[in-house]
Amino acid sequence: MPPKRVIGIDAGGTKLLGGVVDEDFVVHNRVHRLWRGADREETLRIVVEAVEEVRTVAPDVAGIGFGIPSLVEPTSGFSVASVHLPLDEVPFGDLMAERLGLPVWVDNDVNAAVLAEHRYGAARGTSHAVMFALGTGIGGGLVLDGRVYRGATGAAGELGHSVVEIDGPPCPCGSRGCLEVLASGTAIGIAGIEAARAHPRSALGKRLEADGAIRGTFVTELAHAGDELAMEAVCSVGRRLGAGLVSILNVLDPEIAVIGGGAVAAGDLLLDPAREVLEAQGLGPPRMRVEPTHFGNESGMLGAALLALDGLE
Amino acid sequence: MPPKRVIGIDAGGTKLLGGVVDEDFVVHNRVHRLWRGADREETLRIVVEAVEEVRTVAPDVAGIGFGIPSLVEPTSGFSVASVHLPLDEVPFGDLMAERLGLPVWVDNDVNAAVLAEHRYGAARGTSHAVMFALGTGIGGGLVLDGRVYRGATGAAGELGHSVVEIDGPPCPCGSRGCLEVLASGTAIGIAGIEAARAHPRSALGKRLEADGAIRGTFVTELAHAGDELAMEAVCSVGRRLGAGLVSILNVLDPEIAVIGGGAVAAGDLLLDPAREVLEAQGLGPPRMRVEPTHFGNESGMLGAALLALDGLE
Repeated sequence: MPPKRVIGIDAGGTKLLGGVVDEDFVVHNRVHRLWRGADREETLRIVVEAVEEVRTVAPDVAGIGFGIPSLVEPTSGFSVASVHLPLDEVPFGDLMAERLGLPVWVDNDVNAAVLAEHRYGAARGTSHAVMFALGTGIGGGLVLDGRVYRGATGAAGELGHSVVEIDGPPCPCGSRGCLEVLASGTAIGIAGIEAARAHPRSALGKRLEADGAIRGTFVTELAHAGDELAMEAVCSVGRRLGAGLVSILNVLDPEIAVIGGGAVAAGDLLLDPAREVLEAQGLGPPRMRVEPTHFGNESGMLGAALLALDGLE
Repeated sequence: MPPKRVIGIDAGGTKLLGGVVDEDFVVHNRVHRLWRGADREETLRIVVEAVEEVRTVAPDVAGIGFGIPSLVEPTSGFSVASVHLPLDEVPFGDLMAERLGLPVWVDNDVNAAVLAEHRYGAARGTSHAVMFALGTGIGGGLVLDGRVYRGATGAAGELGHSVVEIDGPPCPCGSRGCLEVLASGTAIGIAGIEAARAHPRSALGKRLEADGAIRGTFVTELAHAGDELAMEAVCSVGRRLGAGLVSILNVLDPEIAVIGGGAVAAGDLLLDPAREVLEAQGLGPPRMRVEPTHFGNESGMLGAALLALDGLE
């Protein structure tokens, strides 16, 4: 009998990444899509079409797991609300099962990612792990006492919406001073723009003048190349991430914080300042590790596949 | 056979409250002590002497439970560290068992309090509850999936040491901008002093001139009497508590936040502004209740007794 295979789909805030995953956690036949501001129906169509693309080369798949950037009711796969995709009050699981004709499992995207990192990745062997996904916003996931923790209504783990600055800048969620506004990939871009304005003759300043904007990825590239201003911008965001880590250490006392999402491309330029703040300001002896994802940008897709593999057992 | 009886001791940051508690959760023979800056040996002596006092009137007690304001290893009762009492690295459980000759159980004071509130108090019937104890500082406790949650090393639940203001005022814990600095009972006093300085002819201003200081309890009394400046001071602290509630809702998604500690004497003058911030800024539909403790200042003592009653079963 050939090994069981499923499709994992990570529908992130800006893009979709999917693949066929087998029981040995090997990925085959990847698929990518960008949303480009699609509305609800278009978003759902893109998901279906991406799944169909991989199914043509892997017709044997037995089920599909989805990680979506929503508050999800895990038993029904209902998407209650989403900050980053037009998926408020969408019966996502039912719709996908109907359109795809296969068993479907749905969870929050970072819940899926932390599941993969806990089972086989950076948090393997721990019982208490948190994950921050630093991208357009900040997603979060929790493993407490060895299991993904969802809270009373499935909404737990929104680590990006810890308030770290009362009366701070407004957040798309409606609150103010959320960690997401201060320490996401977007925040690295904003820190770059601020540095560019203060130093117009710098590499950042010239880029801002030429393009009228600066993205976090550009700041990160410059920082890796040794540009001091860019390194400082990344460092300032890392220190704010550190304040978020202090809170999570003091509230949940996990063994590891796994850092994923696009912004983790900054590596230790971002994580070392965060670790310094954590060690200096966290309660008790230093004990929580801060590590990048083991699976890079594929934790969410692999975790989504795990939902299906576990569900089929 | 008479009902089993135990002693519960809540050793808070500023005072000790103890009592004999029976299986029906009825309290007999209360005892109070103040520490008044006692050193380690004196603190331990006061605890032993308070226990001996109640034992003379209740010689039948079968065990003793302690809630202490420390990071506690629950199996050994070792006090790893304490911000508010001189109990760093003290084998508290072993010392008490030796000096008192009875079985002893030890946990963090707010872990004990949330246990009592969850079993028989304000959080009864919930599976996910948090407790904030607003006193000199802010203690915290968590019940997740129906059980007290301690994290990887027993240090979880330090809700007072969520960072809510990066680069905010220094906290005794060594960090900055902790919720404890901004929303404790002490913070109500500080808000009163600030109001007094801005309005020297007000009741608060006159008190500051006369005494050179203002305590949170005085601000709260004035507020209850309808003094607008005092009400504003309490309200400003309540709004900061609200930011802490937003974080805990978004991270843990509990059904209820139980608010205890001396500062809850301010009642809805404190809690209504907190609830307003929570409803306006929390993710998702309003769903987390914010309620004062059912057992007032006795939750910690009752929870400590529960540790012993549960342990003796």
